Order: sequence, then structure tokens, then C-alpha cells
Amino acid sequence: MDSNVSALQKARYSYNPKLPAALRAGANVKCIEGEKLQAFADVEKINALFPSTSNMPVLKFEKTDSPAQANAINVGVILSGGQAPGGHNVIAGLYDGIKSLNKNSKLYGFKGGPGGLVDNQYVEITDDFMNAYRNTGGFDMIGSGRTKLELVEQFDKAAANCKALGISALVIIGGDDSNTNACLLAEYYKKQNIPIQVIGCPKTIDGDLKNKFIETSFGFDTASKVYSELIGNIERDANSAKKYWHFVKLMGRSASHITLECALKTHPNITIISEEVAEKKQTLDQIVTYIADTVAARAKNKENFGVVLIPEGLIEFIPEMNTLISALNELLAKEGDAFAKIENKDEKMAFITSRLDKALADVFASLPQTIQLQLTNDRDPHGNVQVSLIETEKLLVELVKAKLKKNPEKVKFSAQTHFFGYEGRCSVPSNFDADYCYSLGYNAAAIIGAGKTAYMSYISNLVAPAEQWNAGAVPLTAMMNVERRHGADKPVIKKALVELDGKPFAEFAKNRAKWAIETSFIFPGPIQYYGPAEVADATTETLKLEQAGK
Amino acid sequence: MDSNVSALQKARYSYNPKLPAALRAGANVKCIEGEKLQAFADVEKINALFPSTSNMPVLKFEKTDSPAQANAINVGVILSGGQAPGGHNVIAGLYDGIKSLNKNSKLYGFKGGPGGLVDNQYVEITDDFMNAYRNTGGFDMIGSGRTKLELVEQFDKAAANCKALGISALVIIGGDDSNTNACLLAEYYKKQNIPIQVIGCPKTIDGDLKNKFIETSFGFDTASKVYSELIGNIERDANSAKKYWHFVKLMGRSASHITLECALKTHPNITIISEEVAEKKQTLDQIVTYIADTVAARAKNKENFGVVLIPEGLIEFIPEMNTLISALNELLAKEGDAFAKIENKDEKMAFITSRLDKALADVFASLPQTIQLQLTNDRDPHGNVQVSLIETEKLLVELVKAKLKKNPEKVKFSAQTHFFGYEGRCSVPSNFDADYCYSLGYNAAAIIGAGKTAYMSYISNLVAPAEQWNAGAVPLTAMMNVERRHGADKPVIKKALVELDGKPFAEFAKNRAKWAIETSFIFPGPIQYYGPAEVADATTETLKLEQAGK
Repeated sequence: MDSNVSALQKARYSYNPKLPAALRAGANVKCIEGEKLQAFADVEKINALFPSTSNMPVLKFEKTDSPAQANAINVGVILSGGQAPGGHNVIAGLYDGIKSLNKNSKLYGFKGGPGGLVDNQYVEITDDFMNAYRNTGGFDMIGSGRTKLELVEQFDKAAANCKALGISALVIIGGDDSNTNACLLAEYYKKQNIPIQVIGCPKTIDGDLKNKFIETSFGFDTASKVYSELIGNIERDANSAKKYWHFVKLMGRSASHITLECALKTHPNITIISEEVAEKKQTLDQIVTYIADTVAARAKNKENFGVVLIPEGLIEFIPEMNTLISALNELLAKEGDAFAKIENKDEKMAFITSRLDKALADVFASLPQTIQLQLTNDRDPHGNVQVSLIETEKLLVELVKAKLKKNPEKVKFSAQTHFFGYEGRCSVPSNFDADYCYSLGYNAAAIIGAGKTAYMSYISNLVAPAEQWNAGAVPLTAMMNVERRHGADKPVIKKALVELDGKPFAEFAKNRAKWAIETSFIFPGPIQYYGPAEVADATTETLKLEQAGK
Repeated sequence: MDSNVSALQKARYSYNPKLPAALRAGANVKCIEGEKLQAFADVEKINALFPSTSNMPVLKFEKTDSPAQANAINVGVILSGGQAPGGHNVIAGLYDGIKSLNKNSKLYGFKGGPGGLVDNQYVEITDDFMNAYRNTGGFDMIGSGRTKLELVEQFDKAAANCKALGISALVIIGGDDSNTNACLLAEYYKKQNIPIQVIGCPKTIDGDLKNKFIETSFGFDTASKVYSELIGNIERDANSAKKYWHFVKLMGRSASHITLECALKTHPNITIISEEVAEKKQTLDQIVTYIADTVAARAKNKENFGVVLIPEGLIEFIPEMNTLISALNELLAKEGDAFAKIENKDEKMAFITSRLDKALADVFASLPQTIQLQLTNDRDPHGNVQVSLIETEKLLVELVKAKLKKNPEKVKFSAQTHFFGYEGRCSVPSNFDADYCYSLGYNAAAIIGAGKTAYMSYISNLVAPAEQWNAGAVPLTAMMNVERRHGADKPVIKKALVELDGKPFAEFAKNRAKWAIETSFIFPGPIQYYGPAEVADATTETLKLEQAGK
């Protein structure tokens, strides 16, 4: 254990994550089979794609009265995709769980994500190694990666690597895509009679891996708390200096859960939710007008300051922008070479507008030049616009500024922009995420002990104290449907977007008009690991609202 | 007290800030006069400028054996300049302190900074009002402002406003400039026999208001902890994903204390300290070469990631950039109209380079176009380059990228940029800042009780437990020298820059070569208000190193 660690990290080593009652005597549990579950949609297609792993029962674990010692097992674990606080605790729970089954069980970590499983890059996890990472943030213990496990050759290589290490179970910690692929792997092994179980764990700070079973993905709690700390600090600054509008973009390309959660925690003046923009088919100009009108209304109260939250993926949810981006992708795929040869910027822009239809040309022309350049110059290897590089927060500032210039009231407007993403993905996990992740991992050991495959580790009743959490497993296929991707049917675990008729959005929608005009900021402060339970142990507003009355 | 506050804020209301032993029985203390102090430089000039308030003794407070009840006093308090965590606790300490002198004492807050004193914008601070702001961040209780108190008319208006409210003492919470002006005000009142005492308190997150008396300014501890939390999280992300170099710019226009403190807390790969750049007369190209060489060296170890810290004010400390900016200011003051008429960007740039001497034209030509535009387009009302708008972090990324393209080794380099400033100025104050600020305010009441004026509230021995802190006062004039500003002699409290022969810089310099190549990241995590003392109560590395062995 490196002595060169922070005081907090040292102190957190001795934190004992809380477990559900069912798991407190060890991972050797009574496994109760519940209702058999079919895919929530496209049942026949999923059944056909997953003949061996569909239509399986949901599982519930209870403490057994007569725990028998299990055989020692070797297990492999993989971190997949973007970092989320608590990943190390999933590994710690799994480690302790398989040791509780049999102290001679071994855990191997495949390094650098799923690629490490295929390329046989691994490390055996020992007590000392594990202890250096308990209750810490990051995925640096074994690293992560974005290699997709999809091909039979990969599956066979992985099986050979597992066989060499005596590994009979794999735990894949990842988001919707990684868990979909975990299921493909499980199906393949079961069908081929390869004795390797595959278990998934729900990870993503974005909070979009949830459904009627999975209440939340891990990391969402911690990341949204880090962002809310910063938003609260900025709100307090705005309200002290009374000088700036702060435009804060928050990570989350697909879903706006993080932005919504941060809004519920901090009560900013303006919050844009991508799903609402798409649903109401709002134009960029409508969004800009809404912001500019709010700025003007607050200026009447001499409050020339405020905070605006914007989800990272907004631009793709604005129908006209989405259409524009598609048109530009198509146009530049065809005429990119001709475009590249033009040197003069004005001519470049004229080249584009002359080739778009009138409505799109107008949208394009309405954008600030820096954004026009980002949309036409920075392209990914497939020739597509790199949406993640578009500085939406600056775009909105420029457009609001231009809109306010037309306002006869001469509204004062100075803005600062921020983007928070990397700041939260590797934070020390909150007590909630530390407990939840440890339970997910420990529970994964119970699933392995029960001899199951193609399941996701499933801990529920998360708003209650951990003692009362439920432990179980849900078939991965039950969370799947079929979507068209690149012209082919693909089984996928459905991403959960913000539901406009859900309670978290309703709570926000009920209050936003007040928050816009009356300064109603809340300052959550930094994550606390010690101190009163209401400060240190509370989870997200999203989860509390969603689970209320269930 | 608003019930719509966060759980942490609610919990912090009941925190009792710690006081030095001398002040624990109340602000009615024994005042011991020490050595008479002259200005640390330019003694004769300071004596001439401050005939009534120079050459005064340093004061030390001790608990009195026979505390007498003092007369009730009315006191005014002002927050001046940029926000710093703990400002509200200075007010709380002052409030409790003057009530301990006599429970009928009253505290008035002048609103919106020094301007509120001149314009008679005030609020009487009551128990309920005060209690809603104890141990909170921000300056929103009474607001702050940047009006400079320099003119006799302002002083007279202020005196009239104080007279109307029966105020016999003013406490000004501010940085070097505000405290300099506090001293001008004190001198004027004393000379004119106006019975208003003026006391200063040392505020600034920048940490540059310190000297042989003042060990640190308040807010520096908290702000640098917030930034270090984020830097640590980003380091952990960089080390997990192994994909990006993160360039982090940190607030602090004049001094690099924040950047240095954050480096000592988090051990990033590269840290640029402005004072060293100036001292060694480094060129922009030398800085870029240093970064690019480090990137290349780490790439050899397959570590294509890292973290770089940059102080906000860097650009002005690079001698050639400073010269360039001055030359551009001068050039555009003369030929700005002609320049503005040029539409074509390339012609604009040619206009500039043709009018600069060769060396500066080369520097200008070496900059990315976005920076060239920032340097020539965005000008403040005085026609000067707005240095604070220059995105130094992006400038360095562009230049490092260009430099690495010339490297035959084809070094992979992807970068993300961040700027942290507003995120830390209004954080909930750390226990250290909560205690220090409360003590500064309480101590200010003791200075008022002792009948003194033109003093700064002075709490020392800050590395020891609060019980052992010393309470006293130091004459404002003792911290002054005379500097040329806009062609005239001005008395100023000297800003403390990072000293290259000081212990904090030495500690950094000793380790930086190792930190550059070996990944030695430390992850401090968020500020803790509860839990083990080594986690919740420790102060800055800067202070610990500076005070070690004293």
C-alpha cells in the first residue's frame, strides 16, 4: 500500500461498506427462483438470438440457514468503458464474496478493459493489491477500455485464456453496450458448453442504465454530487458578485439524467433537458429565446446574474440541428475534397449554404462562425461531425448575446462558461456508491455461487438503509429489445432517457418558473463521508422521487 | 432561516468555530503593546503619507483576569473585492465579539462592498440574519463590490453615514488594495479627529496577502482544496483512461500560490510557476518545449496521459509576451481605427506584424490564430488587451501539438482543457477557514474594544491547534511600501509572490522531475468537515512548509 496517498484515501481504507442483510453471512445464499422473464420487447427476436439465455427466472437471494462451503473458484473481472466512481468497490465486493464462498478462490483482473481478456493481459488480485483500492475512485486498479466483445474469435480467445487460468466465471462491469455484449458472450459459452459463467454489473455515471429492475447505475450518485457541489459554488458566486451568467455544460451525451439531478439539487435559473427539446421539437432559436427572456426578466429585478445548465448531448436533440448535422455529413462525404480546397472562410461558408436547402441554410447561417467552422472542419475518422467537440455552452452564450442586442431594454449580459465531466467520473465514491458497488460485487459472487450465467447483479430497494436492500439477479435478456443499428437488427439493453411524465422531471417542471425568476439556489457542498447520516448517506433526488410510493 | 437549504448547510449551522485561547472568554482582552513598527520599506515616504497611523506598536492580546463590561458600540462591516470562503465567518466572529463586549452592541453590514458605505446601503445584522450565514461560503449575506475608497469626498460621505448610525468602527474585509485603502481611510479619520476606527482583515483566495506577520489570507485554504479535489479526480481519470493530457488553468492573476499549493497536494506531471518563468526569463517556446519533451518522455513509457497545471496569470509573466502585449496596446492605441477597418483576417494579421519589430513579429506569428485574434480584438475600455480572456491552456495545447508534430517519434497527444476559478471562491469554508475567519472577526472586535485604528486583525501560529493560536494586531502601515502606479508614487501593501528560495517552491522543485515521468498522482478528495482530524482539520502544504521550524 503506497504511503504516498492522501489523508482521505488513507482514512477511507478502513471504511466497511454496508451490505444487504441477505449477504451479511457470506455469498453462499439461498437462491429463490421467481417469475420467468421474457425480453421486455421484441420477444421472439430476442428468443431467437439468445436461445440458451432467454426466458430465465429472476432470482432473489436469502440468507441460508445451513451454509455449505463451496469449492474454490477462479473468477475474472473486467472494467469496461468510461470511468464511474465505485468500480473498485465492485471488485472489492466480488473479491470478498468469492473468498467467503471458499477462501482459496482466486480473482484475476483483466487489464485495460475487455481487450485484456482477449489479449490475456491480467493480474492476480491479492489482499494487499485489493486493499490499496478499497473505497477509492477511478478504474486505475486494472484499467478500463472500449474494445467491444462481439466476435466469435474474441469469445474463443477469451475462453482459452480463462481455461489456462482455471477461470469459470467472468464479471463484466459496464454500461448498456458492455452488458449487451456480456450477454452475447454468456449465450455463446452456454450454447458451446464452455463452462464459463458471465455476470454483468450496471455501471455508468450517465444514469441511463436503469429499468423496472435496475433502480440506478453506479457512479451516477457520486458524479452528480461532484457536479452539484461545483454548480452550488458557482451559484453562490453568481449571487455574491451579481455580475455573471454562468453557462454550465454537464457530461451525458445520450440522456439528461445528470443535468436533471443537478437541477433538483441546486435549483438553477435555467435547465435545458434534451429529451424535452426533442419531444417538443424545439428549435435552437426557441431555446435561445427562452434563455434571453429569462435573462431580461431577471434584469428587471436588477439580477443580472444566473446559472444555466445544459446537457452535453443537447445539440443532437434539437431536431433542426440534428437534421443539419446529417445533411453536413452527407454533403461533405460527397464534396469534402472540393470544400477542403477552398481557402477563404467566407467562400467556405458560401459553399455550404448554397448546397443546403433553404431552411437548413438559414439554421447554418444563424450560427456563430466558430460553430460553423466546428461543424464543417473537425470531422471524425468516419467523416462525421464530432458533436462532442461542439462547445454548446459557448454557442448559446453567443446566440443569447445576439438576441439580447435586439432587446430595446439594453439588458446587461456577461457570461462565463464551464464544462464538467472528467471532474466527476473518478471521484472517491460517495457512501451510497461505495455501499452499492460493494454489494453489487458481493452479490455477483452469490450469483456465481448459485451457478447462474447471463444475469445482471441486482440490488434493489436502494432508498432504504442498506440492511433492507434486496439482493438478486435479473436475466440480461429481460432488459433487451431489438434496435436497427447501421441497417441491421441488433439486440441492445435499452438506454433509459429522461421520462417527461416521470416524477423527477415533474418535480423540476413544477418549480422551474419560480427558480428562473426568484433566486432559489441551493448549495449542496462537497460529498461528505463522515458526519450526520442526512449529509453523508443520502442518495440522489432522482432515485428518491422515482421510488417514492413504490 | 430558510428551510430550503442543503443538508450540509443545515448541519454546518451548528458548527462552533474554534478560537484562540486569548479570545475564549470574550473580546474584552488585555492589550499588550509590542515593538513599534515602521513600514518594511520606503519608511520616510510612508511616514509622510500616514503621519497619524505609522510607527505604531504591534499588539498582542491576552485573556484579562478582570473583564470589565465595555460600552455598547455600533460597528459597520464591508466585504470588498472577489469572494473568498469564510467571509461570512469573519462577520459572525465580529458579531459575536462585539456582543461579548456589550450585548447591546450593533453590527451593520454595508451592502455591495465599499460602494455601500458611500451610498449608505446597509442592513442591521440580527441574530436570525447572522445565523442563516454561519459557516457558509459566498459573500451573498451583504454582497461585495470593487469600488475603491480613495477620495476625500467618499471618506466624508462614509463618515456622515456612520455618524447617522452611531457607528464608531469599520471593519473592511479585503485584499491588499482594500486594506491599503482602509489605511488611507483610518489615517484621514484620525487626522480629522473623526471618531471612527478602521480595522482590516486579510482576504484573498490568491494567497498573496501575506508577510512576516500575516501567515496566510483567508480563503486560500478552502479554494486550493476545492481545486485540488478536482485536479485529483482528473488525475485519477487520466491514469484510468490513459488517453488524455489534461491542461488545467487555475485562478490567480498575480501570484502562483494556488497553482503551487495544488501541485504540492496532487503531484501533477507538469506545473508552471509564473514567478519562475519571469525570474528565468523563459520564452513561450521554452515552456512549450519543456511540456512537449515531457509528453514525449512519458510516451516512451506508454503513458500517453498526464496533467499540467498553469497559473491564470502566466502570459504576463513571460517576458516576450509581456513585451508583445505592451507593444500591441501601444500600436492599437495609435492605429486602432485603421486596424478595425480591415475586414480580411490575413490582412489584419499582416497589418500587425508589419508594424512590430522583428523579434515581436516572430513571437506574434508563432501564436495560433485564435490567440492572435484574442490579442488584437478583445480590448478593455482603456484599449488594453484583456489578458484574462486569453485561453492560455488552449494556447499551450495548440503549441505543444505543433511542436510534437515535428517530433520524428510520432508521439500520440490528445488534450482536454479546464479552468478552475469560480468553482472555489464560494465553497463552504473548510474547518480551517471557518475557524481562522471567525477568529479574525472576533479578534477585530478585540481591536475595536482596545480603541485601536489602522490595524489589521492578526491571528498567527496557524499550523498549531486553534487553542494555541496567537491573537493580536499589526499596523497596516507596517506592511506597506511605495510603488509607482500610473506614473505616481502610491502606498501599497506589498503582494507576496511565490519565492523561488522559499520552502514550498523548493519542495516542488525537488520533486518535479520525478512527478513528470513517474506517475505520482495524489487524490485529495473533497473537503471534509467531519471525520478524523488529519482529514478534516489539516491546512495547506504551503503554510506547513513555510512555518516549519519557525
